[in-house]
Amino acid sequence: MDSLDDLIRNAGAAVYCLYASSENAAMRHMTRFVTHDPVTILKRPDNPPLMIVPLMEADRAQRESPAEILTRQQAGYLEIFEYEKDPWKIQAEMIRRLSEGPYLVPPDFPTALTRALEPYNTVIVDSSSGLSAHRAIKTPEEIGWITNAQRAAEAAMDRAVSMIRHADVKSGMLWYEDAPLTSDLVRYEMNKIMLAYDCTAQDTIVACGLETAMPHCTGSGVLKAHEPIVIDVFPCDNKTGYHADMTRTVSRGEPSGKVTELYETVRDALLMSENMVQEGASGAACYQAVRDFFAELGYQSDTEGFIHSLGHGVGLEIHEQPSLSGTGGDLRAGHVITLEPGLYYRDTGGVRIENLGVVEKTGFSRITNYPLEMVL
Amino acid sequence: MDSLDDLIRNAGAAVYCLYASSENAAMRHMTRFVTHDPVTILKRPDNPPLMIVPLMEADRAQRESPAEILTRQQAGYLEIFEYEKDPWKIQAEMIRRLSEGPYLVPPDFPTALTRALEPYNTVIVDSSSGLSAHRAIKTPEEIGWITNAQRAAEAAMDRAVSMIRHADVKSGMLWYEDAPLTSDLVRYEMNKIMLAYDCTAQDTIVACGLETAMPHCTGSGVLKAHEPIVIDVFPCDNKTGYHADMTRTVSRGEPSGKVTELYETVRDALLMSENMVQEGASGAACYQAVRDFFAELGYQSDTEGFIHSLGHGVGLEIHEQPSLSGTGGDLRAGHVITLEPGLYYRDTGGVRIENLGVVEKTGFSRITNYPLEMVL
Repeated sequence: MDSLDDLIRNAGAAVYCLYASSENAAMRHMTRFVTHDPVTILKRPDNPPLMIVPLMEADRAQRESPAEILTRQQAGYLEIFEYEKDPWKIQAEMIRRLSEGPYLVPPDFPTALTRALEPYNTVIVDSSSGLSAHRAIKTPEEIGWITNAQRAAEAAMDRAVSMIRHADVKSGMLWYEDAPLTSDLVRYEMNKIMLAYDCTAQDTIVACGLETAMPHCTGSGVLKAHEPIVIDVFPCDNKTGYHADMTRTVSRGEPSGKVTELYETVRDALLMSENMVQEGASGAACYQAVRDFFAELGYQSDTEGFIHSLGHGVGLEIHEQPSLSGTGGDLRAGHVITLEPGLYYRDTGGVRIENLGVVEKTGFSRITNYPLEMVL
Repeated sequence: MDSLDDLIRNAGAAVYCLYASSENAAMRHMTRFVTHDPVTILKRPDNPPLMIVPLMEADRAQRESPAEILTRQQAGYLEIFEYEKDPWKIQAEMIRRLSEGPYLVPPDFPTALTRALEPYNTVIVDSSSGLSAHRAIKTPEEIGWITNAQRAAEAAMDRAVSMIRHADVKSGMLWYEDAPLTSDLVRYEMNKIMLAYDCTAQDTIVACGLETAMPHCTGSGVLKAHEPIVIDVFPCDNKTGYHADMTRTVSRGEPSGKVTELYETVRDALLMSENMVQEGASGAACYQAVRDFFAELGYQSDTEGFIHSLGHGVGLEIHEQPSLSGTGGDLRAGHVITLEPGLYYRDTGGVRIENLGVVEKTGFSRITNYPLEMVL
């Protein structure tokens, strides 16, 4: 795996440029600095990254980031503003004063800034197998951060499972402490627990019945007995920005035979895929093997059935490299991935089970520590 | 104000293109669809936006977005993948099959996709005064969503103020229910309250003492009596994606005379700026007036003092147009803005007070409903 310095040299560039807030994973990875406004970052080979920040952020950036810090004023902002009012041309001129290029940029670099840099020198786009591939291989410290977030996810899952298990059933509906047990209430209780772990969870899924046929439907209304309930949670640790991701499908009381069959098939696909993962295995081949396994049992991967990929990398982004889909490349030791087979039918509902773990030289080291159990 | 259709026509383009997840405000504004993975959106004049989604999102997108929905398969993805493996070229070819261009794109459109589209037709970059300026003017419904988030912010602020007010003081440190009252604890309690309003708040600031000299320092450690405590909270409503933003500076017991002077000066600047805001007022002029007001009292706006802008628009982004800074343009009726003067000194600390409101034809209609009070 090439280092960032190698990427820059091999591209024939003088410097790697980012222009992004810390919601951008490459930016946060390179600077470990949290800001909601975009900043400019320049990385030269054999040098620490250089970050240009507004004056108001200078002291905090010095304290919180290992990057070298320049204020916009120090980078010439006010001087340039005297003759140039276009904000993108101002950014470009500040960059040019620090490096004459050529400039290597990520695929999602703003078009307006590329256009403003092009008159100075070549702007080379780093392919998606560049810096993101580098970031996909995690250090032990990063695996620790992801594991922390996963523990928050499991505590939240435990709360959801416990509420559903101990609910009363009245006319097929779940009741908890004398009120209907809704998707919103379970989600709220889960998010509260994750907050106690200093994790933020958005769009936590607690979907029931036919809603589960839509994999990312967050769910609404009162939960029902004997129906699949998909619980999918992906917290972000506020301190580090790293995510975890897990899904369980449960049912209060036995569901229909068809749902039970879906559950057992998806569970077997999960266990099978956990056994296929190791360094050098192809993401596309793992996906195809699960697709074939489903097909042999009569479950297609068409407009219903297995309608998404087998899994994805997890880190500063909830979905990042590598991909375990039809276009997935080879897995590498240190990749942190989810495996999440699922089957979805509009007239029955859906089942998805998702574990998180690390790709090792000889296998898959599961991070998720939570039982596989459908009927509560 | 031009509509999006006018922007497209005036640019000489056939279609406006977005490629973004719902973390991107333009994308969420145009589709009201929430997804963590980027999707392609095409807007032709006199047509609803067309959104190309992965198969797994198709049913949910039909249900949740007013956009017209195509699956990637329907847009030719699998067919193109037969001969083209570059993901950006695949996206570009899907777009070309739907519109031959010219293509109008936002400034932050991914460079890789621009480069893949350029061989087909001209790619025109919409200036920052284009679609974002259009989005800056809020409908009554959007103002309602922002107000909801602001009520969550106020409930959280109330909890923080109450904890600080009722804390015990031991050797200058605040204690609450027999434990030291930390920045982390106050933040946790505030975030929990906002969660009950179905709002997510990240990086809530509860900074004390010299930490307050760094405007965006989130704060750490035990809170102290007789020191400025800056509390800045900016929740996002999970249902709508709209934000609010408010700041108060408080002190448990009288702070130093210098801090009291800062407080009174900043409060006067806030009241003054609330009186300047109305349709047609210049953001830059409002900023400059506050800068001059501070300067007359001996407070400079240099590397210390008033080191940020006077305010900013609030909506799907926490910082969006308009800007009340040295480069700010004219305010328009329907802009929702914060006014947040502040003064910061490394040896004293900082004071910031921030109110949110709507620009009206004849003034500023404050949304914030929370007292101005420093000493608790």
